[in-house]
Amino acid sequence: MNYVLGIDGGGSKTLCILMDAECQVLGRGAAGASNYQSIGVAAAIQSIHSAIQTAASEALKFTNTIQISAICLGLAGVGRSGDIEIVKSMVQELQNSQFLPITWDVQPANIVVCHDALIALVGGVGHDVGIVVAAGTGSIVFGRNHQGETKRVGGWGYILGDEGSAYKIAVAGMQAALKSYDGREISTSLVPNFQQHLGLQNIAELIEVIYRRGWGVKEIASLAPIVDLAAASGDELANNIINNAVKELVTSTSTVINAMFIPNSVVEIVTTGSVWRGKSQIHEKFTTAIVNHFPQVKVMFPRYEPAYGAGLLALQSLSISHEKFNSAI
Amino acid sequence: MNYVLGIDGGGSKTLCILMDAECQVLGRGAAGASNYQSIGVAAAIQSIHSAIQTAASEALKFTNTIQISAICLGLAGVGRSGDIEIVKSMVQELQNSQFLPITWDVQPANIVVCHDALIALVGGVGHDVGIVVAAGTGSIVFGRNHQGETKRVGGWGYILGDEGSAYKIAVAGMQAALKSYDGREISTSLVPNFQQHLGLQNIAELIEVIYRRGWGVKEIASLAPIVDLAAASGDELANNIINNAVKELVTSTSTVINAMFIPNSVVEIVTTGSVWRGKSQIHEKFTTAIVNHFPQVKVMFPRYEPAYGAGLLALQSLSISHEKFNSAI
Repeated sequence: MNYVLGIDGGGSKTLCILMDAECQVLGRGAAGASNYQSIGVAAAIQSIHSAIQTAASEALKFTNTIQISAICLGLAGVGRSGDIEIVKSMVQELQNSQFLPITWDVQPANIVVCHDALIALVGGVGHDVGIVVAAGTGSIVFGRNHQGETKRVGGWGYILGDEGSAYKIAVAGMQAALKSYDGREISTSLVPNFQQHLGLQNIAELIEVIYRRGWGVKEIASLAPIVDLAAASGDELANNIINNAVKELVTSTSTVINAMFIPNSVVEIVTTGSVWRGKSQIHEKFTTAIVNHFPQVKVMFPRYEPAYGAGLLALQSLSISHEKFNSAI
Repeated sequence: MNYVLGIDGGGSKTLCILMDAECQVLGRGAAGASNYQSIGVAAAIQSIHSAIQTAASEALKFTNTIQISAICLGLAGVGRSGDIEIVKSMVQELQNSQFLPITWDVQPANIVVCHDALIALVGGVGHDVGIVVAAGTGSIVFGRNHQGETKRVGGWGYILGDEGSAYKIAVAGMQAALKSYDGREISTSLVPNFQQHLGLQNIAELIEVIYRRGWGVKEIASLAPIVDLAAASGDELANNIINNAVKELVTSTSTVINAMFIPNSVVEIVTTGSVWRGKSQIHEKFTTAIVNHFPQVKVMFPRYEPAYGAGLLALQSLSISHEKFNSAI
């Protein structure tokens, strides 16, 4: 009996799924961050090790021995630069661990390293063809077609891109509030709403919050719901920001559809990330615009989580030709 | 005979003007940064001390003794928060220095601390009524009317504002290049131009440059001329960026005019900062748009430098009522 591991490694948490050949999940484990580019290789290995340990312990309730035949790690930031080898050497270290209640029988071709968008796509639609539109702290659109070709649009980070992301929505909201305060824009409930949320006497104190308290991208992105709620309450400037975010995400998604799929083909588009949970009908607006352009596409929320998608990719590496598989990563 | 000091203290350099009561410059000195919020109070004092020393040494060619009756310091970031007292105590330390070839006879009311936009305005137009439209690394519009009332629009920094600044033009240029690379935008010469300037094989390597080489706001802003030159050569996306920058600066300036000056009054508007030296007719476009809305205004390049404006404000503190003066800072 073969088992596989699917790992979703991110900047704040790591998830591990232990799956059998029938795609049944026998164990699931969570741990801290594993983005080795920020926290270092040793700390990343530790998180992944811990997530595997928890998943394996859970699985041992159902089976006596666990032999791992394949592992897939989906990691943020991996894929564009040539750091796949680093992750493969991390897997080597995991295989040498004395503390995991599993055995390994993994061929090199069954160690799959890919970026987080691919596992989100595969988990989201439950197979490996379609498009994922990720809009959380950052944003990226990633698609894979039946030929195994892939395309990324966006994902350029908080300075160079991330259009439609929570970070960009939050920043646009603060900019609009300050323009209104200056008299450059119409009045907006964003001013009192930011003040109240952040405990400010005056919206000008945003300078203190953003530049002097050392706020990072995540902290700023966490303010996006203020803009979303103002839009839901009918605030004009907030609605402009949400509509602009939708427009950017629609453009990116349309670019991927046009580049990769033949006209009028059925495409599943899965939306992931915090932005889609907004109250200002951002998901509905996106869906309406996309279906308007491409009547055959289906916009959906994820069927499974990204770690599950990693598990599916690990299983796939055991069954399909390496050439076809490698084109996906 | 009374002399005054005008200090322009910034993030990269400090300038000092030593001026007599007839607004004649007797000495000028330059030194390193003096933005104490970044480099600390001791280092800032050292820079200002050095600039004064050079200016005074030069002035001693024309006079035997120098007694300072007033000093004005225009510093970036000062004015919004209550850190004027810090700067005043810095002046106190300068007065205690044994190493300056000057004597001090300065009343508290003749120690003038203000933000850099006011000295840029006063230096730029040569008196204290008008508007300065500063568009360098950051951007701000600041006006002062005949009643001594002042208004600032913008100046919210690289995350929250700085519309029309070199930083925002550079970022918009890179975003446009990456959108074009993604297939989200039309083709643009910004792609080869950024690649060539930065020595990149592929525009996607911008990620490496911007996020991993630790580039700051100034380094990014230094890329604005790439966008400006592309616009001057007729690139459509680059021109959109320049036109948008103009639009933002026109809106901010119009807001100040409308808020502070009676309709159809003559207003001098001085443009300062690197953005205005662009080749893409940004100054002409701005002037045309402003004069179109406000036929009586006059858009001009600076008559004098900001340190000279600080000198004028120091002189003014000796002659006008304190109430009127204080409303300007």
